Amino acid sequence: MKRYKAVLFSIDGLGDHPVEQLQGLTPLEAADRPALNALAKEGILGIVDPYAPGVPCGTDTGHLCMLGYDPYKIYTGRGPIEAMGAGLELAAGDVAFRCNFATVDGNGIVVDRRAGRIREGTRDLANVLDGIDLGDGITARFAPATEHRAVLVLRGPCLTARVSDSDPGGKNEGKPAGLVSPLDKSEEAGRTARALQKFLDLARKRLDNHPVNKKRVSAGLLPANAVLTRGGGIMTTLTPIAATYNGLKGAVISGEATVLAIAKMAGFHAATHASMTGSYDFNPIVKARMALDLIRNYDLVLIHVKAPDLAGHDGRWDLKKETIERVDSLVGTVRSIVECDTYIAVTADHSTPCRVGEHSGDPVPSLIWGPGIRTDSQETFGERTCAKGGLGRITGNQFFHSLLDHMGFMPKFGA
Amino acid sequence: MKRYKAVLFSIDGLGDHPVEQLQGLTPLEAADRPALNALAKEGILGIVDPYAPGVPCGTDTGHLCMLGYDPYKIYTGRGPIEAMGAGLELAAGDVAFRCNFATVDGNGIVVDRRAGRIREGTRDLANVLDGIDLGDGITARFAPATEHRAVLVLRGPCLTARVSDSDPGGKNEGKPAGLVSPLDKSEEAGRTARALQKFLDLARKRLDNHPVNKKRVSAGLLPANAVLTRGGGIMTTLTPIAATYNGLKGAVISGEATVLAIAKMAGFHAATHASMTGSYDFNPIVKARMALDLIRNYDLVLIHVKAPDLAGHDGRWDLKKETIERVDSLVGTVRSIVECDTYIAVTADHSTPCRVGEHSGDPVPSLIWGPGIRTDSQETFGERTCAKGGLGRITGNQFFHSLLDHMGFMPKFGA
Repeated sequence: MKRYKAVLFSIDGLGDHPVEQLQGLTPLEAADRPALNALAKEGILGIVDPYAPGVPCGTDTGHLCMLGYDPYKIYTGRGPIEAMGAGLELAAGDVAFRCNFATVDGNGIVVDRRAGRIREGTRDLANVLDGIDLGDGITARFAPATEHRAVLVLRGPCLTARVSDSDPGGKNEGKPAGLVSPLDKSEEAGRTARALQKFLDLARKRLDNHPVNKKRVSAGLLPANAVLTRGGGIMTTLTPIAATYNGLKGAVISGEATVLAIAKMAGFHAATHASMTGSYDFNPIVKARMALDLIRNYDLVLIHVKAPDLAGHDGRWDLKKETIERVDSLVGTVRSIVECDTYIAVTADHSTPCRVGEHSGDPVPSLIWGPGIRTDSQETFGERTCAKGGLGRITGNQFFHSLLDHMGFMPKFGA
Repeated sequence: MKRYKAVLFSIDGLGDHPVEQLQGLTPLEAADRPALNALAKEGILGIVDPYAPGVPCGTDTGHLCMLGYDPYKIYTGRGPIEAMGAGLELAAGDVAFRCNFATVDGNGIVVDRRAGRIREGTRDLANVLDGIDLGDGITARFAPATEHRAVLVLRGPCLTARVSDSDPGGKNEGKPAGLVSPLDKSEEAGRTARALQKFLDLARKRLDNHPVNKKRVSAGLLPANAVLTRGGGIMTTLTPIAATYNGLKGAVISGEATVLAIAKMAGFHAATHASMTGSYDFNPIVKARMALDLIRNYDLVLIHVKAPDLAGHDGRWDLKKETIERVDSLVGTVRSIVECDTYIAVTADHSTPCRVGEHSGDPVPSLIWGPGIRTDSQETFGERTCAKGGLGRITGNQFFHSLLDHMGFMPKFGA
């Protein structure tokens, strides 16, 4: 059976709602998008629910679904993905926790779960907690996340996420930080609880007189003198994409840590570049050139563009329209440089409507273009034309399988 | 509640891709199909994914889905279905294997996995291998299938399909036939592996000087002096169709062993006729007449037509168009002879696009026609009109349930 290559565009947060200032059009519908419309006219459209209708996905779960995985099967607590998002590399068996920098008093009472919503200096604070040897062959990796948040990864033999949170939770300030205890009778739970508690005690000591905190106290701010943990999860191994789909070789181009982390977990070649900032100022030329290089050696090249999602979060319908127009030029460039029998597909990890400013459960406009596609009667690429497209309404997994089936990589079910 | 009867057409491999030589139409869209179009105009259309979007089904899994079953729940290797297709009756717990008559030399090296594609005499060869007592209360049933193929069924206590193939596989002629080994540490796997190897050793002895082989050797042909096994599966019990759907009585008309085997497993009456060859030259009149007889005593009669799938595999868009036109006349004849309140439904087990030459994961065009159907605005029966039909995009199970619901056989869910 003949096999084909494909370029898959993941346009982060693409889907949107009608915008009054755009005469009731969505940013995508209002954008000047000749390349996307040309693909729509010759291809097949559909609306895709990354996970399921009405469920707002994250960038992590959205991309897992886009690549054929079931997040619920590989997702054990938010810790591992947060840790990857913070730039930590995880291996199977690692246990990761979401953390807060917090303020506790001399008696271990939690005064503020967010250490006065500390923003500056968390990198310096994190540095003294990263790479600690906790004994039993267990080491701790620690990295700052946004504002008062951070992530902790424990690596070592026989660990589990079945331990209690030390974070007493939002309503429990004024109470002591919890002592970590095992949540089952297993040896693993005991080991993990001991190691985690040891880390938290060490954190108290190392943070207490840290320069950043001295400065905060003298400035009348609450010190970030403790770490609180929650949302523990253990890292599972993803079945490599090649093992599931007849040796499919894939590459992902992205500037975002979470997407690159998921790509590596799935056995994709993860490609990035200093110019890929995961921000508004993305460079279509660099991505197109990189895609052209990779498509020579890989069957599937996924190009991730973050900017439309940022515009959605910022409520900037004008910027979203503009970034989509630059995505369109990227799509046009890629189409003009790849072999003519290369499939081109467009989808997204979730919708990020400008009027909501957050991810929504709306389906994302999607299309597949290439040899033998059953066309439909739609001629433009937008949320509402896609809802009338020939693919109908399918899930992210199903969209991925439909693309792979056209490429000749879907395993036959039965005889 | 009033109950209705229905004729369900299973048009094997019906779905296709646009064909350049047909001005971008699919074979179905290009075919002269007055009967199907009339049903489309008065009925409701949809696209059906036999199992799920993008997943290419086999004839076996496709028909299991079409009849309301989940292949993943009952499917354990191809062996049992092939065995039933070859006419062996199976009971729950039986383990069945697909077999080849093969040629091995004095050192047990596989010279030809197909014994020179032997056609004559396989029945005689099979007779000396059928009904062998293998000890441990295990007996072997053996029957010839098409050409060099055959099937083996082991019946006895505590058997499993978790044993290795003795067939070295297509690329490994010139290597010795594999010794059967257990694939797990269970007692069942050990017992089954011993019994199967004993059968294969006995087969060597009994086939070696068999008259059929003596004749072949003297004629300069390769002897069928060994049996190779693969695709082992254990027989599970399907819940009879009548038990799930309020006593529904069904019959299946087909010329293909696999489809007839599934029909029997599901508790359908399996009807065939010498003129049904499962090849291009199908006889619409015989099938129509048989359907008319059966619909008197059965609630649901499924008519299977293989020819369009063959044309798809052969890449013959012209033959596919032509066979679909003959299917159309069959549909027209059936409609004209059954009671006017009999439902008529059309679907397929999978798509077999001519440009692919294999089963694909594209959805199959489908329709339901009969009393009280919510019509849609579509007036012709084709892949692209069905994509705009009132049924939307549903699975094979859901299509079957929708038909049975109209017939008044779907159990109520709730009060």
